[in-house]
Amino acid sequence: MALIKPLLRSSLLAAGVLLLLALRVAAQTPAQQPPGLRPELITKLATLRDAALTSDYAWRQAAHLTENIGPRLAGSRQADAAVVYVAEELRRLGLEVRLQEVTVPHWVRGEEKAELTVYPRQATGTTQKIVLTALGNSAATPDGGLTGDVIVANNFDELTALGRDKIAGRIVLFNEKFDKRMAAAGRGTAAYGEAVVYRGRGPREAAALGAAAVLVRSAGGADFRLPHTGAGAAAGIPSAAVTAEDAELIAHLTQQGRVVMHLVLTPQSLPDAVSHNVIADLKGSEHPEQIVIVSGHLDSWDLGTGAIDDAAGVAIAMQVAQLCKQLGLAPRRTIRVVAWMNEENGVSGSRRYAAEFEGALSNHVGAIESDLGAGHPLGFTGIFNSSATALLVQIARVLSPIGATLIDAGGAGADVNAMGRRGVPAFGLMQDQRTYFNYHHTAADTLDKIAPHELAENAAAMAVLGFALADMPQPLPRSIDSR
Amino acid sequence: MALIKPLLRSSLLAAGVLLLLALRVAAQTPAQQPPGLRPELITKLATLRDAALTSDYAWRQAAHLTENIGPRLAGSRQADAAVVYVAEELRRLGLEVRLQEVTVPHWVRGEEKAELTVYPRQATGTTQKIVLTALGNSAATPDGGLTGDVIVANNFDELTALGRDKIAGRIVLFNEKFDKRMAAAGRGTAAYGEAVVYRGRGPREAAALGAAAVLVRSAGGADFRLPHTGAGAAAGIPSAAVTAEDAELIAHLTQQGRVVMHLVLTPQSLPDAVSHNVIADLKGSEHPEQIVIVSGHLDSWDLGTGAIDDAAGVAIAMQVAQLCKQLGLAPRRTIRVVAWMNEENGVSGSRRYAAEFEGALSNHVGAIESDLGAGHPLGFTGIFNSSATALLVQIARVLSPIGATLIDAGGAGADVNAMGRRGVPAFGLMQDQRTYFNYHHTAADTLDKIAPHELAENAAAMAVLGFALADMPQPLPRSIDSR
Repeated sequence: MALIKPLLRSSLLAAGVLLLLALRVAAQTPAQQPPGLRPELITKLATLRDAALTSDYAWRQAAHLTENIGPRLAGSRQADAAVVYVAEELRRLGLEVRLQEVTVPHWVRGEEKAELTVYPRQATGTTQKIVLTALGNSAATPDGGLTGDVIVANNFDELTALGRDKIAGRIVLFNEKFDKRMAAAGRGTAAYGEAVVYRGRGPREAAALGAAAVLVRSAGGADFRLPHTGAGAAAGIPSAAVTAEDAELIAHLTQQGRVVMHLVLTPQSLPDAVSHNVIADLKGSEHPEQIVIVSGHLDSWDLGTGAIDDAAGVAIAMQVAQLCKQLGLAPRRTIRVVAWMNEENGVSGSRRYAAEFEGALSNHVGAIESDLGAGHPLGFTGIFNSSATALLVQIARVLSPIGATLIDAGGAGADVNAMGRRGVPAFGLMQDQRTYFNYHHTAADTLDKIAPHELAENAAAMAVLGFALADMPQPLPRSIDSR
Repeated sequence: MALIKPLLRSSLLAAGVLLLLALRVAAQTPAQQPPGLRPELITKLATLRDAALTSDYAWRQAAHLTENIGPRLAGSRQADAAVVYVAEELRRLGLEVRLQEVTVPHWVRGEEKAELTVYPRQATGTTQKIVLTALGNSAATPDGGLTGDVIVANNFDELTALGRDKIAGRIVLFNEKFDKRMAAAGRGTAAYGEAVVYRGRGPREAAALGAAAVLVRSAGGADFRLPHTGAGAAAGIPSAAVTAEDAELIAHLTQQGRVVMHLVLTPQSLPDAVSHNVIADLKGSEHPEQIVIVSGHLDSWDLGTGAIDDAAGVAIAMQVAQLCKQLGLAPRRTIRVVAWMNEENGVSGSRRYAAEFEGALSNHVGAIESDLGAGHPLGFTGIFNSSATALLVQIARVLSPIGATLIDAGGAGADVNAMGRRGVPAFGLMQDQRTYFNYHHTAADTLDKIAPHELAENAAAMAVLGFALADMPQPLPRSIDSR
C-alpha cells in the first residue's frame, strides 16, 4: 500500500484538474439555453423549489388523508370525506373549487379466508391456512364458502393447454411470479406490467373455461406474506390475490398430489355511486382560459390507508397551489389542481373529466400527475413533442440540487395519459420506485412509508414543472406527433 | 488509469508474497493445538461438514414440517402431527426413539379485529381499521367485543405515572419501539430483549391498574404492517400486539385528542393438553450413558408455518443423526436428538426434561440448540467453562470454510440454558440474525425464508460441534464456574 501512494496522489491531482475543467464547461451551459425560459422565471422556479423543500404542507395533507380519513376506495364514506376535505382546504387557500360528479363502482370487501382441506402427506384433521384478499369487483362465494380442487397455471398458455375439461369447476391459481429483481433494480413498473395482466384478464379467462374461482399470485414484491389487491375484471366468479408465499405453498403441494381448497369471500357489488373529482383553479393572470393540471388521485385501495398510492400525489399537487399563494406568485395561465376520483377501480374520474372537457382540450396546455409513490423524485416521463425536450431539460435543471432532472418519453399517469394522446403535453413524476411495489395495494401502504423530505422533493418537482408550464411566454408545443 | 497499472501490478505481487507468508503461518497452526482433538477426529468432522453442505436432508424435513404440516402451536393437531412425523423419521434412521409426555397449555386463536370508532378530525360515519393479533394466553373480549378509550404509555414508568385513575377501564397501548437499527446491525436479540418485556409483563402490569385490555407494539422489525405474536402473561384481560404502523397511528391520533377503540378477540384457553418431546438416541459406542443433545423446538407460533422458528432447528438436529448414519460414523458417546415441545408458550418441554433427568445431568456432557433462525451460521455462543475455550476454537476451526468459527460466552437457547447453568456445557448456534426479527412470530415465517444453502451450513455446524463433543476422548469440563 505504501508503495503506490505517491503515484495515486498524482493521479488524483490529474483527475482533479480534469474534473475542474468539466465543471467549468458545465457552468457555461446556461449560455447555451434555447430561448423561452427567462432568468426571472428561473428565479421564480428556484424560489418555489426552495420553499417546497422547507415546507411540511404536503406532509400534513398526506397525514390527514391517511390517518384522519383512512382508506378511500371509490364509493366509500372515506372517499367522500376526502373529497370534502380537499375541496375545503383548496377553498381555504383561495382557489375556485368545483366538484365534478363521477359515477363510480361501489364494491365493498367482506370476509375473506381460505384453507387447504386436502393435500398430500396431510396429517389427520389438519388444514393449511392460505392468506389472500379479494380482488376488486370479485363476486362472492356461496354462503358457507366454496370447496374445489386447485389447479395451477403459470401463464395463459398453460391455462389454454389445460382446457375446459381440467378447468371447469376448479379453483385456478395463476402463478405468474412478480420479478423482484427487476423491481429492485428500478424497473418496478415494467415488472408490474408483466404480472398485472393476470389480475386484470385472469378472472375472465378462467371464468370462460368454467373455473369456479380464480386466484392470482400477488402482483408485487416483498417477502412478508402480504396479499396485493387491485382491480380484477368483473367475471362473475370469486377472485382473489394470494401472497407469494401462499402461491409457492400451493404450487409445491399440487406438484405432490391433489389439493382442495375451501374459500370464503363475501364482498358485495352495490349499485354504482356518485362521487366527485375535486377541481380547483388558481386563475391565470393573463390567460385564465389556458390550463395546466397538477394532480394525483384521491381514491385508494381499501387495505392500507393509501399513503403512497396516492395521498402523496394529491398532497403535492395541493402544495403547488399553496406555494404560489404563500409566495405571491401569480402564473400567467391557470394552474388547476385536480384530485381524481376512482383511478383505482376503472379510471372513471379522468374519463368523466375528458368527456366534459372534450371540446376544451386545446386550452389544456399541460397535465401532470404523481402516481408512483413518494420516493425521491428522479424527474419526469411523459407524452410530449420531442421539439420541447430542450426546454423541458432546462426547466428540470432547476431541480438539479435535488437530482430530479430526468426528462424522458414514457407513461404520464393513468389519469392524464389519455389527454397526452390527445395532444396535451402530459407528464408523470418519476419517483425512485425500487420499493414502491413492495407496498403497492397492500395493508402496508401507510403514512410511515412516506419520508417527509422526499415528499417535499416531490412537491418541489411538481411545483417547478407546473409553474413553468403555466408561466412561460409560450405554451409547450402540443404532444401529438411526439411518438 | 493506464498510468498506474504497472505499479499496481508490482504492488499486487508484493501483497501476494505477504499473503503466501501469512497462509504458511496459518497452515502451521495445527501444530500448536492443545491436546484433545486428534487428527482422525478432525478428519471425521470435516467429512460431516462436507456431507452436510451437499445434502438436502434438513431442507426436506423443514419443508415437510412447514408445508405438509404447518403451524405447530403446542396443543394443536399440527403439533401432534409433527411429533409423530419426527419420531417416525428418526426411527426410520435407526435411532432409539421415545416420546416424553409434556403438559402444555392449549390456547386457540379466534377472531381478531379492531377499529377506531372515535378519533380527532373524524369524518361522519368513518372508522379506522387497526391490524393486530392476540398474544398467546390472551383472554377473550365479551361477546360483540369491547369498546374503550385508548391511552398510550411509552414504557412502564409512564404507566405508573398515569396511575389507576387514568388506566382503569381503558385500553392501554405500550408503545415501546423495537430498535430496528440495532437489529439490522446484527444485534436483534438485544433489540428483542428490550421490547419483549412489554409483551411479557405488560398484560399483568396493565391489568393490575384495572385496564380493560392491553395492546403492545409488535416486538419485531420490518415495515410491512405485520403483527408479531408471542406469549403474554395470562392476565385475565384481552391482550394483543398491534403492528408498528398501527401503534404509530394510534400514537398520532391520541396526541390530537380522544381515541376510542372497538376490539374483538375471541381466543379460547382450553384445558391443558398432553403433548411430547421427541427424544431419539444414536447410542454411543463406548459411553452410551454419556449424552450430547442436539436440538431445536418442534412447536411454533400459529400465524406462520414456523419455518425459521423453529422447523429449521429441528431439521438440522435431525440431520446430525442422519449424517452419522449415512457416513457410518459411530460416536463414542450418545448423540441425542431432541425436538422440544412448547418452547414458545412456557418452555414446558425442556422443563419436563430437566425434571426427569434431574439425577442424570452429570451424564449430559453437552447440549446444543438452534433457535435463532436459519441464516448463515457465525458459530456458537453458550455457557461453558472458559478452560474449554481453546478446544472449542479448535473444533470451530473445522467450520472456517463456511465462516462459522465464532465461540463466545452467551445464551445457548431457551431449552438448554437451564442445563448450562447446572453444569452441562450448553451451546446455541449463532446465526446471522439481521433479518430474523422481521419475520419472528409473524405470518411471514414461512419456508421461503430459509435459504437451502444456509440451512445446510447450519446442519454442518451442529454436526461438527455435536459429533466433536460426543467423540472426543474426554468430555468438555463442566460449565459451572464459567462465569
